[in-house]
Amino acid sequence: MKSIILSALLVLSGSVAAAERNEPVQPIVPPGNINLGMVELGKKLFFDPRLSRSGFISCNSCHNLSMGGTDNIPTSVGDRWQQGPINSPTVLNSSLSVAQFWDGRAADLKEQAGGPIANPGEMAFSHTLAVDVLSSIPGYVMEFRQVFGNTPIGIDAVTTAIAEFEKTLVTPNSPFDQWLLGDDDALSAKELAGYELFKNSGCIACHNGPALGGTSFQKMGVMAPYEARVPAEGRSAVTGRDADRFNFKVPTLRNVELTYPYFHDGAANTLTEAVDIMGRLQLGKTFTPEENAQVVAFLKSLTGDQPRFLLPILPPSGDDTPRPQPFDR
Amino acid sequence: MKSIILSALLVLSGSVAAAERNEPVQPIVPPGNINLGMVELGKKLFFDPRLSRSGFISCNSCHNLSMGGTDNIPTSVGDRWQQGPINSPTVLNSSLSVAQFWDGRAADLKEQAGGPIANPGEMAFSHTLAVDVLSSIPGYVMEFRQVFGNTPIGIDAVTTAIAEFEKTLVTPNSPFDQWLLGDDDALSAKELAGYELFKNSGCIACHNGPALGGTSFQKMGVMAPYEARVPAEGRSAVTGRDADRFNFKVPTLRNVELTYPYFHDGAANTLTEAVDIMGRLQLGKTFTPEENAQVVAFLKSLTGDQPRFLLPILPPSGDDTPRPQPFDR
Repeated sequence: MKSIILSALLVLSGSVAAAERNEPVQPIVPPGNINLGMVELGKKLFFDPRLSRSGFISCNSCHNLSMGGTDNIPTSVGDRWQQGPINSPTVLNSSLSVAQFWDGRAADLKEQAGGPIANPGEMAFSHTLAVDVLSSIPGYVMEFRQVFGNTPIGIDAVTTAIAEFEKTLVTPNSPFDQWLLGDDDALSAKELAGYELFKNSGCIACHNGPALGGTSFQKMGVMAPYEARVPAEGRSAVTGRDADRFNFKVPTLRNVELTYPYFHDGAANTLTEAVDIMGRLQLGKTFTPEENAQVVAFLKSLTGDQPRFLLPILPPSGDDTPRPQPFDR
Repeated sequence: MKSIILSALLVLSGSVAAAERNEPVQPIVPPGNINLGMVELGKKLFFDPRLSRSGFISCNSCHNLSMGGTDNIPTSVGDRWQQGPINSPTVLNSSLSVAQFWDGRAADLKEQAGGPIANPGEMAFSHTLAVDVLSSIPGYVMEFRQVFGNTPIGIDAVTTAIAEFEKTLVTPNSPFDQWLLGDDDALSAKELAGYELFKNSGCIACHNGPALGGTSFQKMGVMAPYEARVPAEGRSAVTGRDADRFNFKVPTLRNVELTYPYFHDGAANTLTEAVDIMGRLQLGKTFTPEENAQVVAFLKSLTGDQPRFLLPILPPSGDDTPRPQPFDR
């Protein structure tokens, strides 16, 4: 009985005890306590461009689940092709982060989900207008009623549903996780050597926990300043403290093979480049080409099972649904 | 044996003989003779924004398979938010059309697929650059080899694969098709009355065949001129003949409930409005509100099973893959 309770607590915490090995990284665990109806609704909303003023941009536009939950461009394309100020972080395993956005200005997935909808540079809508649209779509009215009961649709329900879907976007079963769980053959000698370097060189100091990141804010440019291509100042924008300037949330390294380009400004195109820069700027260490290749091999072992689901079919607008405004404003 | 050959021929022709009823519309038939490996490859390409210069626009951006194979805006958003010149027609059941694009300038799906990739107002790439990108992606190199054999990737293979995927995008089993196949209970009295009006008023003269359209080019504005919101002149741009001015391919009415807004300029937001305008401009007939509602009810019975498939997971770019250029050109 005691062990059952312990297991339940471990699942709820988003990680399991390093079952087979005592390592500073834990395997990804599929989420428990999921509301399936809410997930299906949230999935539709995640793919619905009617949450944007233009009717052209959905959550999936910049957090593309065909491409590691990112857009694979340095900074995103927003409403009317505005250039985003920062690289879109992956939505995969984002439930494991201590906070959301690079500067942590949203406490959780639900709070994050409301941000881009109302951001004039992203989806350029408002919460009120988005709710007006959804409330005019008969299929959504029925589905919100099914999931949330007989109350009018509100932004709270919208973001709750999107967050519930995002909780399912974890990527278990990477080769590294199989190794963590006890399969000695899951990693090659090169990948294992890369993991040892990753630990011994100090990468693990920030990239730890089940997501290998997302657990703290750290300065970009410790040993030498980082010349960023974007003006973002990071955590200080939230705390107002000068000491937090250029502190950013440590990104997860899960599926990092898929989430190029790298860093908050998307300036590094390849893992080789990213590992080299991180070594020099954060650790004061220049990896040899062989070491770099070993670390990169390890990083590629972090690609897990991508979320697989049927492309959602969205309920059609009604005759009275406010129409998108892509042009002519 | 004879009946087996006959069945095979009927499947190949894209329609079955009006099995149960003798009607000018035939049920949608799932496609035969499909190369599954090619379909899976084409599906990835259809969803891959790396076929655009920006890395942001894929086939699915404007032919969104979550939304009836359209973008549900009057004219599309193209590269750098350029405004498209004409409404994006649905990709659903497009294999049943006599030709592709509103003006029929592409003979078939394969020829069509190459158009937007190289159109400066749409994906703004070139065939050469698109092929360069795909040829640098290890996962695509393997998959093209699997499907097309050991030859370098070319635009011909790319568009062949996309077209093969698009051949699968048919929508059988609508209530109307169930009725056509003999189920007397599949349509309500109102829907049946709408179908009778649809036939007796003359709509069927152009909207016929299994797709209820796509079989001919017809003038937009027969009884009275149509004041279009876009300058497109239609078929004459292909034939050079003045007699073809404002002739457009008759759009399919399959899934028309999902493919708003309507007409080549996307000017009609609702089916009620579209039926009213069509009646007056094409047939010289003003439908009463009751008649209009009956026709609309019939049209909504044309919504079939939407293609359901797993969201494709795209192979990641390699270190040498040319990067997208969304900005700064």
